Amino acid sequence: MQEKYLGVDIGGTKVMLALVSGDGLTLKRDRIETMAEEGPRRVVERIVGSIKKITGEEKITAVGLGVPGPIDFSRGVVTLAPNLGWKNVAIVDLFAEHLDLPVYLENDALVAAWGEKTLGAGKDFDHFIYMTVSTGIGGGLILDGKLYRGAHGAGGEIGHMIIDPTGPTCGCGNQGCLEAMASGKALARMGREAMEQGQWPEGPSPDGITGSTITNWAKAGDQPSIEIIDRQARYLGLGLANLTHILDPQAFVLGGGVMAAAELLLPRIQAALEDYLMPGYGERLQLLPAKLGDIGGALGAAMVARDFRAK
Amino acid sequence: MQEKYLGVDIGGTKVMLALVSGDGLTLKRDRIETMAEEGPRRVVERIVGSIKKITGEEKITAVGLGVPGPIDFSRGVVTLAPNLGWKNVAIVDLFAEHLDLPVYLENDALVAAWGEKTLGAGKDFDHFIYMTVSTGIGGGLILDGKLYRGAHGAGGEIGHMIIDPTGPTCGCGNQGCLEAMASGKALARMGREAMEQGQWPEGPSPDGITGSTITNWAKAGDQPSIEIIDRQARYLGLGLANLTHILDPQAFVLGGGVMAAAELLLPRIQAALEDYLMPGYGERLQLLPAKLGDIGGALGAAMVARDFRAK
Repeated sequence: MQEKYLGVDIGGTKVMLALVSGDGLTLKRDRIETMAEEGPRRVVERIVGSIKKITGEEKITAVGLGVPGPIDFSRGVVTLAPNLGWKNVAIVDLFAEHLDLPVYLENDALVAAWGEKTLGAGKDFDHFIYMTVSTGIGGGLILDGKLYRGAHGAGGEIGHMIIDPTGPTCGCGNQGCLEAMASGKALARMGREAMEQGQWPEGPSPDGITGSTITNWAKAGDQPSIEIIDRQARYLGLGLANLTHILDPQAFVLGGGVMAAAELLLPRIQAALEDYLMPGYGERLQLLPAKLGDIGGALGAAMVARDFRAK
Repeated sequence: MQEKYLGVDIGGTKVMLALVSGDGLTLKRDRIETMAEEGPRRVVERIVGSIKKITGEEKITAVGLGVPGPIDFSRGVVTLAPNLGWKNVAIVDLFAEHLDLPVYLENDALVAAWGEKTLGAGKDFDHFIYMTVSTGIGGGLILDGKLYRGAHGAGGEIGHMIIDPTGPTCGCGNQGCLEAMASGKALARMGREAMEQGQWPEGPSPDGITGSTITNWAKAGDQPSIEIIDRQARYLGLGLANLTHILDPQAFVLGGGVMAAAELLLPRIQAALEDYLMPGYGERLQLLPAKLGDIGGALGAAMVARDFRAK
């Protein structure tokens, strides 16, 4: 009988779960609310409930777990997850109280990257960078065909590459991180600034403007919103050019909520990337949307459990 | 009998050569002028002359070759070497006309990185980034204990990471590359700008100011020169923080001519790095001067010939 793996992707508002066969077929999926404010113990209990519902009588081999934030890979600890309000949570131990199964912990961008590598847009590449652009900007590096974790499991934080030291302040405290310049949060900020300068006098209050507002207006053809998307795409192209000069990948795979506007964003990012790349770098470089959507993290977590359980 | 390897490091003005034993002992060394303007064929002939002088009757196993600029690893071709004025030079074939030995070609920053990994400051690290700061800024990535070349052999160009899109124009055409902000060339530019603003009225003409001028004045205690070094160190620290967030290395190893002012630069870079790093990243990160000096590239090239000839 073929082995089965359970992937869990814990996000700030929702937890996605997927039961995947050893050859990568999605067998079942589920989605529950995170309710992180109830604390890690309760969250884990509800996730275990969902796992039992999904698997029923079926035997699974291992669980893969993606969490938002840096982890301590060797101890199975979530070091810091601001979106969950968690700090030094021994999550693998919490699962062990309920499940007699190996649990593999990874950063959420890394599991999403591994999902795209094994089942999605990155299948054909041994060197690619997965970038997720949503409220923040995260990344997962696939180098030489493997997940690149860095020396301490904290690599891939491409959103905190500073691209303008006089730019807007980022959540991390620095100024001008790519995340502060080009994330969903940055779209919202640029929208509010435009509004304060008299744009959209009939619109909502500045506080009501989110990244999605600008994305939706731009998709509907609103010119000032398109100009904001232009600026976002310039910064993203600059960031990808930097990463290309450093890592010389074959491709970028772009996911996250902001990719809802992929048809506007991708050609603009491509144009900026070409402007910024040195000769010779752009010819073989591909820019691709992620394929797996919002279940990608859970699928990738299942594939992490499949591919790294030998460790 | 132990095997011997010959390393050659071709620079813009000089070629360094080293004969190294299989266990990493330097047996002989030589230095000749590059005179790149005579064309690659003549340069190779003179290098072969030096190789024959060094090796005499001794049998060597392979030659490693470091060249300044992107290469096509698979074809043994120097794609572009602006400092030599070379473009698409099939240098491995040129050597084959004179030597019946395998010749392994690599980018010069990569061979220097491999030298520090095998014989120098990087021995204890599986994940470190070698950065050379001289006229320009180059880099070599050691990831998971191996040279990281990227998908097409063009990785490691950390000097062309843009850190300020409105910054000074770089040789590559972009604005605000780390190289344009913090290399020897950038020191010279900051020096000229200070002079045009009335600094050092008794000094040489602005055209006479080089990176070394500023470095030497700063070492002698000249305050305005120290302030320029401060600015350089801020930018270098920012660049290293970006690389740390992306790659999570154990260490940086810094070489190149500008490191003549290491006692001024290193503590300042360290302070800037700590300012820019997110929590958790700096605790285990080391900042070290390169150990091998200007023969490091040739030694590293010999070790590349030793370690990668199986390919």
